[in-house]
Amino acid sequence: MQVAWVGIGVMGASLAGHLLRAGHAVRMHTRTRARAEPLLSAGAIWADSPAEAADGADAAFAMVGFPDEVEAVFLGERGFLGAKHAPKVVIDMGTSPPALSRRIAEAAAVRGVGALDAPVSGGDVGARNATLSIMVGGAEADFARVRPLFDVMGKIIVHQGPAGAGQLCKMVNQILVANSMVGACEAMVAARAAGLDAERVLQSVSGGAAGSWTLQNLVPRMLKGDWNPGFFASHLAKDLRIAREQTRSDGESLPGLELSERLFQGLEALGHGRLGTQALLKAWHDVLGQIR
Amino acid sequence: MQVAWVGIGVMGASLAGHLLRAGHAVRMHTRTRARAEPLLSAGAIWADSPAEAADGADAAFAMVGFPDEVEAVFLGERGFLGAKHAPKVVIDMGTSPPALSRRIAEAAAVRGVGALDAPVSGGDVGARNATLSIMVGGAEADFARVRPLFDVMGKIIVHQGPAGAGQLCKMVNQILVANSMVGACEAMVAARAAGLDAERVLQSVSGGAAGSWTLQNLVPRMLKGDWNPGFFASHLAKDLRIAREQTRSDGESLPGLELSERLFQGLEALGHGRLGTQALLKAWHDVLGQIR
Repeated sequence: MQVAWVGIGVMGASLAGHLLRAGHAVRMHTRTRARAEPLLSAGAIWADSPAEAADGADAAFAMVGFPDEVEAVFLGERGFLGAKHAPKVVIDMGTSPPALSRRIAEAAAVRGVGALDAPVSGGDVGARNATLSIMVGGAEADFARVRPLFDVMGKIIVHQGPAGAGQLCKMVNQILVANSMVGACEAMVAARAAGLDAERVLQSVSGGAAGSWTLQNLVPRMLKGDWNPGFFASHLAKDLRIAREQTRSDGESLPGLELSERLFQGLEALGHGRLGTQALLKAWHDVLGQIR
Repeated sequence: MQVAWVGIGVMGASLAGHLLRAGHAVRMHTRTRARAEPLLSAGAIWADSPAEAADGADAAFAMVGFPDEVEAVFLGERGFLGAKHAPKVVIDMGTSPPALSRRIAEAAAVRGVGALDAPVSGGDVGARNATLSIMVGGAEADFARVRPLFDVMGKIIVHQGPAGAGQLCKMVNQILVANSMVGACEAMVAARAAGLDAERVLQSVSGGAAGSWTLQNLVPRMLKGDWNPGFFASHLAKDLRIAREQTRSDGESLPGLELSERLFQGLEALGHGRLGTQALLKAWHDVLGQIR
């Protein structure tokens, strides 16, 4: 298929690479061209804008950071929907507010273009190994059309409902991810305070009822003092704000989510937003001091 | 080996059964003899007290509920240490305060008996399938002696340090378990409030960075409205109180742990202590109303 790809972040590079290796023709654009070089060497074609990348494409994917960038890539003058020949389906694989996904779907429908919101979970590891969970919102027919492309990027691909439903599911995912990291930090703080060997404790607790992806994948990095981002702390802080606003407007108040949000916003406020979420342990006592 | 077993609860029956099937001679005692019948039919021998069960045994295990019962089984007049011929090692596989484990170890040493604290994680499923994580505190030599028996009961068996270290590790485990259940409940509340299908959401979030043992094993029960105990809510409430007291005395305050403790104590106060921990979802709004 003819595919457009915009955004080469921690995960985007891996995913675009999977599409290339599966034999799809990829036209790509990203703000910093240098980041695209490895993929251009591997056969991707450079485009000067999202519109040019999406020109006549079967599917136009974006994986960029914040809502204003998403808006520009899809709805901007030189965005996907501004392509000379409209793409068949546009897909937002980033984490955006559900309302933005619905707005993109409406604007796309006006041009006869399908739109999916398809955020992912599974981190840099999942992107590299194509084991991501992909949560999809949008029309069933558009999902069916893009499904073969999702299949080369992930392992668990579930249609969650109409436009925005993928984002709502991702919101639920992030509530869990943040909660899990807070629990892991408290566990490691408690273990050390009790005079235990954190590595041995991790071995024991990973294998029982406390086991989680976070314990398996991020806590080992944490214990090595590796704060490199699999996922930026600032992105999680943003996701948690969206989640809290959404659940509040749905009439629920969730004390664990509120705690997670305060902790990760505290981490960002201390200047650690560009570290991985596991850096919450590094700054644990400072963050606690700040939010109290 | 000649083994004593006291306590036939949700997990004890499975574990004693594994020892029997592995060819060990088991003498058992429990408060309600009827609960022991299936094991007696399978070849276990009844004893009228823990002391009688432990008489001359290579290893005397107990898996009973609350600290006062543990104390009676190990230190009481008719307890393990009151046996006519002292057992070689006594092992507490329940979850007890670390200080009690140290007290048992001291009393055992006076009689020349080894003592291990060896709490487990992995729930009723882990006990049935012998896939438990067993966290062991005590002397290295006593651990080595009992290791073959642990091997038929569990999969991940780690020596955590001196007497009490198994209990401290279990405390860390319970901080994670409780945190994970709180996150799972909030996730399901958020999913339903957002109009999503909880089953599909579970499918998506189980497979990515939010994945956990809780999502795989307890949330499916939760979504079916099955509140039967894999682990009693009241036992978790007790474990969290021990954990908070321990971490406070170690100079840490953990806001996620404090929240979990309030929630599970609230669940117990509402009369749901004998349901499984997943019943937190059933009573979510009532519990929230009560703790605020």
